[in-house]
Amino acid sequence: METKSIKRIALFLVGLFMLNVTMAQEIQRQRGPQIISPAIADNNSVTFSLYSQVAKSVSVSGSWMGFGEKAEMTKNADGVWLVTVEPLEPSMYHYNFILDGVTILDPANPQAMRDGTRYANTLFIPGESSEVFQVRDVPHGSVKKVWYNSPSLDLTRRMYVYTPPGYEDSKENYPVLYLLHGGGGDEDAWTSLGLANYILDNLIAEGKAKPMIVVMTNGNPNQKAAITEIQPEPTENGLIIATDQFPVSLVNDVIPYVESHFKVIANSSNRAIAGLSMGCLHTQLASMNNPTLFKYMGLFSLGLHPDDNNLKEIMKPLIAAYDKNLKTLQKNYELFYVACGTEDFVYEGVQNLRKKLDDNDFEYIYNETGGGHTWANWRDYLADYTPRLFK
Amino acid sequence: METKSIKRIALFLVGLFMLNVTMAQEIQRQRGPQIISPAIADNNSVTFSLYSQVAKSVSVSGSWMGFGEKAEMTKNADGVWLVTVEPLEPSMYHYNFILDGVTILDPANPQAMRDGTRYANTLFIPGESSEVFQVRDVPHGSVKKVWYNSPSLDLTRRMYVYTPPGYEDSKENYPVLYLLHGGGGDEDAWTSLGLANYILDNLIAEGKAKPMIVVMTNGNPNQKAAITEIQPEPTENGLIIATDQFPVSLVNDVIPYVESHFKVIANSSNRAIAGLSMGCLHTQLASMNNPTLFKYMGLFSLGLHPDDNNLKEIMKPLIAAYDKNLKTLQKNYELFYVACGTEDFVYEGVQNLRKKLDDNDFEYIYNETGGGHTWANWRDYLADYTPRLFK
Repeated sequence: METKSIKRIALFLVGLFMLNVTMAQEIQRQRGPQIISPAIADNNSVTFSLYSQVAKSVSVSGSWMGFGEKAEMTKNADGVWLVTVEPLEPSMYHYNFILDGVTILDPANPQAMRDGTRYANTLFIPGESSEVFQVRDVPHGSVKKVWYNSPSLDLTRRMYVYTPPGYEDSKENYPVLYLLHGGGGDEDAWTSLGLANYILDNLIAEGKAKPMIVVMTNGNPNQKAAITEIQPEPTENGLIIATDQFPVSLVNDVIPYVESHFKVIANSSNRAIAGLSMGCLHTQLASMNNPTLFKYMGLFSLGLHPDDNNLKEIMKPLIAAYDKNLKTLQKNYELFYVACGTEDFVYEGVQNLRKKLDDNDFEYIYNETGGGHTWANWRDYLADYTPRLFK
Repeated sequence: METKSIKRIALFLVGLFMLNVTMAQEIQRQRGPQIISPAIADNNSVTFSLYSQVAKSVSVSGSWMGFGEKAEMTKNADGVWLVTVEPLEPSMYHYNFILDGVTILDPANPQAMRDGTRYANTLFIPGESSEVFQVRDVPHGSVKKVWYNSPSLDLTRRMYVYTPPGYEDSKENYPVLYLLHGGGGDEDAWTSLGLANYILDNLIAEGKAKPMIVVMTNGNPNQKAAITEIQPEPTENGLIIATDQFPVSLVNDVIPYVESHFKVIANSSNRAIAGLSMGCLHTQLASMNNPTLFKYMGLFSLGLHPDDNNLKEIMKPLIAAYDKNLKTLQKNYELFYVACGTEDFVYEGVQNLRKKLDDNDFEYIYNETGGGHTWANWRDYLADYTPRLFK
């Protein structure tokens, strides 16, 4: 720990590019005792620490806890607030501290990410079940931030395109997965939170998934790009996610752009789609309204909610599309993959969807897991779904 | 303001993809009064706000202030801490709050960025002098995150490559600028803090800069990639920046990779380099040790520091390279560009460098500005340097 702390201070100093001793001492004085947080023990219990002599209360809230839950931290004689939480299963989690009522980042942890408008620290617990999204010593694909014209939305906007290892040097064309994020997310979500590029790198290296292009769009139809990208004023996003605008632009604008600018096998047998939550709504709208476009569909953590008043207006056109086109889709698909956690608040809606599929003798794969509406599940679903594509 | 707040709550709810009224009320209760922060007035004064009933002290520290300076915030009857700072010049700034001694993000501002291991909010003041890095309605180039093999460093590692608008559809080859970050930074810095891609987009759209590829490397020779990318444990970086390792890998590994994987005009007349601070040291090492490699060199905020004990070991091989190769470079270059702020702590070293150049009758362009060792300056230097390239 000693060496690590010294290195971190050295890094900070190098950041200023001046080995100015006076300034270093001042920084050290302001920082207080050396803090290592999070500290992961051999049994995967985790100790969180924060230095504040004057705070009244500090707690930690993590993605392994239930909604609104937190663990109170207690202050020791040096002014360091501490708590140790129970051993965690290998996965990638996120967490925040709550300092005197304000949600903050752990200042000792340089690993953090943005989830919509909120920032949280990441906590990686290594182990077998997290190997699939770890950055391993395998060939890595590229992630390209591309701006494209979307006449359907009257915007020039941004998306991310993953191309597999060897793509640049290859003369071959590749199949494409269109991978859609959830509400509050944007084109950044599937790489920063979902680690989709590393999941694909690992599965391709192991021969489990075919080399494929993965297109990660921004599903908010009034956003040019992620809110961090557009200065001075990010595009505010209201409640218009419910509309069919984005799925229409996906079909009319995104797919033609990708198929004319990347090395793509442009047919339905080599075209897949998947999405989580809001992106699963978009996945269903795009595929049910265009039942010969995709041969592979992945539905993560959303179904049909006919009885829910809040979602009724959203669901109406989707149910109409199912009624109109499910039979056509039935003749034209290879895989319909549905995944949901038993603790997910959309669980009932997914069962409604399954009933509709069963009533129509429509074959699908159902992956029911534990857990809720979480990135831990969505990473697992992606790792389970992509090896089934383009076979 | 009312509408914006409502929209932001709506976005948060959509993030959960459930219009669960009970949960919304709970979130609202925890959040306290609606906060808009930062609020920019017509005269460009800025009001910062934070809600905490129990905090003992809150202040704001911003990049427009001197080192260690902060503005104290005062609490109103609703528990909202407030301060208004003087009108700011149009630019992009960053800032943090300090809450009971802990440096935090402004929870009401979704715009934030990482500077090395620290996170700070961004504050964009629009105006004529910030137009060059604004995301405008012009064609946008792509930014590609590429992994490449670096035998010199025995690592597979990541860099960012900007390709100009039209690159994908073009049959032409392009000149290349190698653009290096400073100490504490990584391959992410020149886009996230430097907005280099938008600066190039704007200059190219106006016909001021030639379309070019910009390669943004990671100058820390023991890092595979930015610390946020490598889980579980980021590569710690000690004080080895001083070595020539990275410049050697740039010449031996990066340039050959770029010239064989991108559409590049592979000669010295179409090869430029520039860097800030530590990246300026690397720029000098790479060009002075390879005096026929680049015809264009940009030195931002670093010079030669022969008399500084702390930097002596760093500077010794560089000074030797100047002594050995300056005459050769003198016969082979088009542009040697030096820029520094009068308040920069490296100012004296830059004057030492100028003396060496003058003593050798070596022609260069010198851009002396106000300000210090800041991204505000480095963005301006990039916007001033790139129009001079490849003419």
